Amino acid sequence: MTDGDTGELLRGVVETLQIEELEQRLAAGRQLAVKAGFDPTVPDLHLGHVVVLNKLRMFQDMGHVVKFVVGDFTGMIGDPSGRDATRKPVPADQLEKNAATYAEQAFAVLDRKATDICFNSHWLQKLSLADTLSLAARHTVARMLERDDFSRRHAAGRAIGVHEFLYPLMQGYDSVVLSCDVELGGTDQKFNLLVGRHLQKASQQAPQVVMMLPLLVGLDGERKMSKSLDNYIGVTEEPASMFGKLMSLSDDLMWHYFDLLSTRSSSGIEQLKTAVADGRNPRDVKMSLAHEIVARFHGAAPAQQAEDQFIALFRRKEMPDEMETRELVTEDDSLPLFRLLKLSSLTPSTSEANRMVRQGAVRIDGEKIEDAALAIAAGSEHVYQVGKRRFMRVKLSARKPG
Amino acid sequence: MTDGDTGELLRGVVETLQIEELEQRLAAGRQLAVKAGFDPTVPDLHLGHVVVLNKLRMFQDMGHVVKFVVGDFTGMIGDPSGRDATRKPVPADQLEKNAATYAEQAFAVLDRKATDICFNSHWLQKLSLADTLSLAARHTVARMLERDDFSRRHAAGRAIGVHEFLYPLMQGYDSVVLSCDVELGGTDQKFNLLVGRHLQKASQQAPQVVMMLPLLVGLDGERKMSKSLDNYIGVTEEPASMFGKLMSLSDDLMWHYFDLLSTRSSSGIEQLKTAVADGRNPRDVKMSLAHEIVARFHGAAPAQQAEDQFIALFRRKEMPDEMETRELVTEDDSLPLFRLLKLSSLTPSTSEANRMVRQGAVRIDGEKIEDAALAIAAGSEHVYQVGKRRFMRVKLSARKPG
Repeated sequence: MTDGDTGELLRGVVETLQIEELEQRLAAGRQLAVKAGFDPTVPDLHLGHVVVLNKLRMFQDMGHVVKFVVGDFTGMIGDPSGRDATRKPVPADQLEKNAATYAEQAFAVLDRKATDICFNSHWLQKLSLADTLSLAARHTVARMLERDDFSRRHAAGRAIGVHEFLYPLMQGYDSVVLSCDVELGGTDQKFNLLVGRHLQKASQQAPQVVMMLPLLVGLDGERKMSKSLDNYIGVTEEPASMFGKLMSLSDDLMWHYFDLLSTRSSSGIEQLKTAVADGRNPRDVKMSLAHEIVARFHGAAPAQQAEDQFIALFRRKEMPDEMETRELVTEDDSLPLFRLLKLSSLTPSTSEANRMVRQGAVRIDGEKIEDAALAIAAGSEHVYQVGKRRFMRVKLSARKPG
Repeated sequence: MTDGDTGELLRGVVETLQIEELEQRLAAGRQLAVKAGFDPTVPDLHLGHVVVLNKLRMFQDMGHVVKFVVGDFTGMIGDPSGRDATRKPVPADQLEKNAATYAEQAFAVLDRKATDICFNSHWLQKLSLADTLSLAARHTVARMLERDDFSRRHAAGRAIGVHEFLYPLMQGYDSVVLSCDVELGGTDQKFNLLVGRHLQKASQQAPQVVMMLPLLVGLDGERKMSKSLDNYIGVTEEPASMFGKLMSLSDDLMWHYFDLLSTRSSSGIEQLKTAVADGRNPRDVKMSLAHEIVARFHGAAPAQQAEDQFIALFRRKEMPDEMETRELVTEDDSLPLFRLLKLSSLTPSTSEANRMVRQGAVRIDGEKIEDAALAIAAGSEHVYQVGKRRFMRVKLSARKPG
């Protein structure tokens, strides 16, 4: 291992508490056990997890093994880190159902062959009250209340359940059971991650290196992306939904997502920023981000389809809510588009209709039309658009024989 | 059951939180389950427990059954109630050894036939982490910190172990398992006792009546009698040790012990107070208390023996450390006491010697002598006392024939 490896591993990391220990372990050339835990409190992993998954994948690519901890036990409480209220309990059957597919979802990013899937119920459900007491005896109430989140809640008079004090002990005990060398987590996980070190020391293990990654801000633009705050994009969400949610990001938030999720180089992202500053529509840049991320979880073709659908939908959305409706009658089964445009008076002439189609300025139901002679079937009803502002709903009927 | 029963039960009780509920249950005529818990952190029960045992016995005499909980599990942590620091853990084998004789000790006060001995390890060691979490989830950190003892410790920056927050939950769970109607405890137990009510309600049980008894102050005259503060008198202590410790109480503290431990009537105790106010030596009154209590745990004869031994010891203690020593010689095998007193010049004459003996003012080695002609053997050495202040060590030798 080389210094280059450490440098690579530290890219994008907010804080690594024991860089020297990490370097020593990497230098030893041994395969490291790198842990991250995920509580299955909702059915799918989300993009916030992907920040951590990307880093885990980096360790795998360097030959290390990932301990992917599915918190099917800890999920019953839920991690109080960074929260301002006690979590609602998630029923055990729901956790079990969610947990079943968590690892599979992670394999969109992780290398299956270098991943150990570990359900923490396997050891935590065997812990007795006596075991729990001996873990709890290693921590003081004052230390717990020094945590930012608990301290804020306590000061504000918002209830903290006694069981919430036990969460960090469980997460830390996972590291003991798995003899972890490194644990990754969000910056709000600092306390929990350090409890792991503390309990490993008490069990005569070399304590894990604690590596903290930035928190991805959720769709609300304020709080971290979280299953329970419902401001998230799941990695198994349908391409269209995922694409649409990413397109709903504010222009500022978009850059945050580029930084934490895109595989583009830093300089590539800088170029995009410059382009937008110079007048490029940020919507187009956002679309490329959405495309990249949907492609990672669903493949290139579904990403393209989601983009096309989004554009169509988006264009429809630009139509005015109220517009003129006209009914035309044809002697035949259909009518060429350029004649319909002239008959409806959307264009002053058929030649103007042809010209507008050639310029890409004509849409039917939001979709750009390239063939001015497109046959519009009798019996159809569509919204026709010419240029940016002229809209008309046109119902085309066949003249009844008689 | 009558109102008189309730009145009897409430005598000496500091506070009963739900008197109406108690009256209702007594009125129902059902046999009530009355619980008190004792952690076997030292080898024997002490007089502080006797305050509670007396009240339990009162319930038994009214036909109810006592749930005597031996805290062989909770003892591993130790009750933090009223403490200013985390308790030192007691090894499991020590707890087991102590627990073995706890119930037997209690039968000095309790009626064996109306007592269920319950070891709380029987159910607490079966509790899993999941069970623990669901108990812990019913209580908030803020509520725990409102407790006087925790709040004082927290404010003073003295560590509270997270495990100490679990103690009240365990004690409360005992009440659920035993379906208790009433729980007795010291006034410092209020929080723990109420947790029992809370957990019973959550388990759809009628919540227990909480009855609090005064805390017996320990030998230090400051803190409550406690196994772990080592200011206690164990109920299995040897009669001489028990008697001596009771005699070491200050005169003020003596009245506290009369109030909480003596079976004398309140008016009887008032009479003693009046007598002392009128000049009776409080030491004699203290002796009657010591006698009563030693007799309760060891029987009348050992109590008398302890008193005699104490008096002898006490008298020896009153002797001056330094005193004149004189050697007398007799022609015979022995010498009558009155002659010895004259020869040693402890009395100016034999008639004065006889008079002093008659007045009970002569002691040999602290023991009062009633026979002025007592034969003092040649070869003996004793301390002779006449009146309060005259002491002399006298060695009596036989004149060698020659």
